[in-house]
Amino acid sequence: MLLQVVLGLVLCVVASLGAPAVIDLTHKVNARTLFWPGQPPFNFSILHRGYKKEWDTWLEVNSFALAEHGGTHIDAPSHYIQGHWRTHEIPASHLVGPGVIVDVTRKVEAAGSDYEVTVDDMKEWEEMYGEIPDGAVVIMKTGWSRYYPDSYRVFNSRTPQDMYSFHYPGLHVDTARWLAEEKSVVAVGSDTPSPEPGINAGKFPVHKILLEKNIILLEYVANLDKMPPTGSTIFIGVINLQDGSGGPARIMGVLGGGSAGLARGASIILCLLSVLLTLMFVGNWQ
Amino acid sequence: MLLQVVLGLVLCVVASLGAPAVIDLTHKVNARTLFWPGQPPFNFSILHRGYKKEWDTWLEVNSFALAEHGGTHIDAPSHYIQGHWRTHEIPASHLVGPGVIVDVTRKVEAAGSDYEVTVDDMKEWEEMYGEIPDGAVVIMKTGWSRYYPDSYRVFNSRTPQDMYSFHYPGLHVDTARWLAEEKSVVAVGSDTPSPEPGINAGKFPVHKILLEKNIILLEYVANLDKMPPTGSTIFIGVINLQDGSGGPARIMGVLGGGSAGLARGASIILCLLSVLLTLMFVGNWQ
Repeated sequence: MLLQVVLGLVLCVVASLGAPAVIDLTHKVNARTLFWPGQPPFNFSILHRGYKKEWDTWLEVNSFALAEHGGTHIDAPSHYIQGHWRTHEIPASHLVGPGVIVDVTRKVEAAGSDYEVTVDDMKEWEEMYGEIPDGAVVIMKTGWSRYYPDSYRVFNSRTPQDMYSFHYPGLHVDTARWLAEEKSVVAVGSDTPSPEPGINAGKFPVHKILLEKNIILLEYVANLDKMPPTGSTIFIGVINLQDGSGGPARIMGVLGGGSAGLARGASIILCLLSVLLTLMFVGNWQ
Repeated sequence: MLLQVVLGLVLCVVASLGAPAVIDLTHKVNARTLFWPGQPPFNFSILHRGYKKEWDTWLEVNSFALAEHGGTHIDAPSHYIQGHWRTHEIPASHLVGPGVIVDVTRKVEAAGSDYEVTVDDMKEWEEMYGEIPDGAVVIMKTGWSRYYPDSYRVFNSRTPQDMYSFHYPGLHVDTARWLAEEKSVVAVGSDTPSPEPGINAGKFPVHKILLEKNIILLEYVANLDKMPPTGSTIFIGVINLQDGSGGPARIMGVLGGGSAGLARGASIILCLLSVLLTLMFVGNWQ
């Protein structure tokens, strides 16, 4: 009896205590941070850097200026939809969710940089990993983050200040509509300047379809090559900017250990296993 | 036998699948955001807010300027320790950890606003909730966030631009040393302007002890009244500012469901319970 309890306990603890891995999905904010054309430049002011005599200590203090829609950031619904959530109005529950990473790198390589991700691409993911869960953070991996922060390669244009010349992949409008109407996700993102293909600049139908449903957009997501297709929890640490239309975000993916991935996956299986093993031992011994 | 398996299964699934609650531990960033004396003011520029004819759409776009050490934010080790981690150098694994909320509100009310949290206060927490886990995010709840953003009440001074007049509670230096030397935590925070008591201004021994060990400081943490003492996971979504000495952070606590809190706490207990119940049923029936 004691052995059985110990066995079940050990399996449950192993399932629950494994150290979580944290993947940083965020580019650095600096002078090379990419913005949509027409935004003011990033500014970093060193207020103090050196020995501070009055306090007898080393001291570094800085201030910065940043346009909301630069680098790894979010679009709040108010960016394109009048009266919808501004940054500070997004509920915290919409900033955390199970990660769904849809890898379309090969398709983009085959079809070219104007590739539009199809509903079939999304259904292919679902066939392999199960239905996109409610509350998911869905992110397209196109391979584009290897170009960041080279504006010529990211916007794929010789005139990166002219948005009508942009060529990078994104969601087809039908896919945006499918996500907005058939699914119940909290955020949709990509490793490109936008989940909207470059060729849609000036019309932005994908933005409007998703933001109308209060689905947050994530842009310039980094390090997706370190993320599994499923089993992660994604945290969208956007600055809590009052009346913002978006803002810089520290986006992190958590795997295993303390993550929803493990809690919802392996810990169910391991705990179930512990119960079954316990029963088997009892069966054999009595 | 079937009933026992079902019972164990149900408990494990309940433990693992419950919807996680997300607590926003972040004050809004706006014109009332509080800064340490001498910082430049917050600025918010509306670049566009209204109907944009060329694109036939509503459009909101803004830019902002912010000193690093304002509102809910972190201090990076480089803030006071030469050559230590700047903001972008903090490993992502140091931005996630089990939450340890130490409520000293009553003690501050009894002893006054210069109260310094003692090692015994920390050990009291440990007696009730177990040892402070490795990688923990330890946050002092003093009740101070109810004063935010009233600078006279927060700094508890008639001259909130003179730091030598400040009176708010914080860690005793011995407690900072105990956390730095006896424990292995990733971050220490409070709902005050700093985990360092106001009366230490200009000397900052608590900052130096903790930052020397690469322990991140969290300042002006909000909504701690919604957080349990243990069982949460805390995410520190600090802006990934290159060469920063800190920066604004979206701090979130996650309870239950997919969180490490549940994974490490309740799910262990519930799964253990399921094993024990299974054994009890087997015992009774045979």
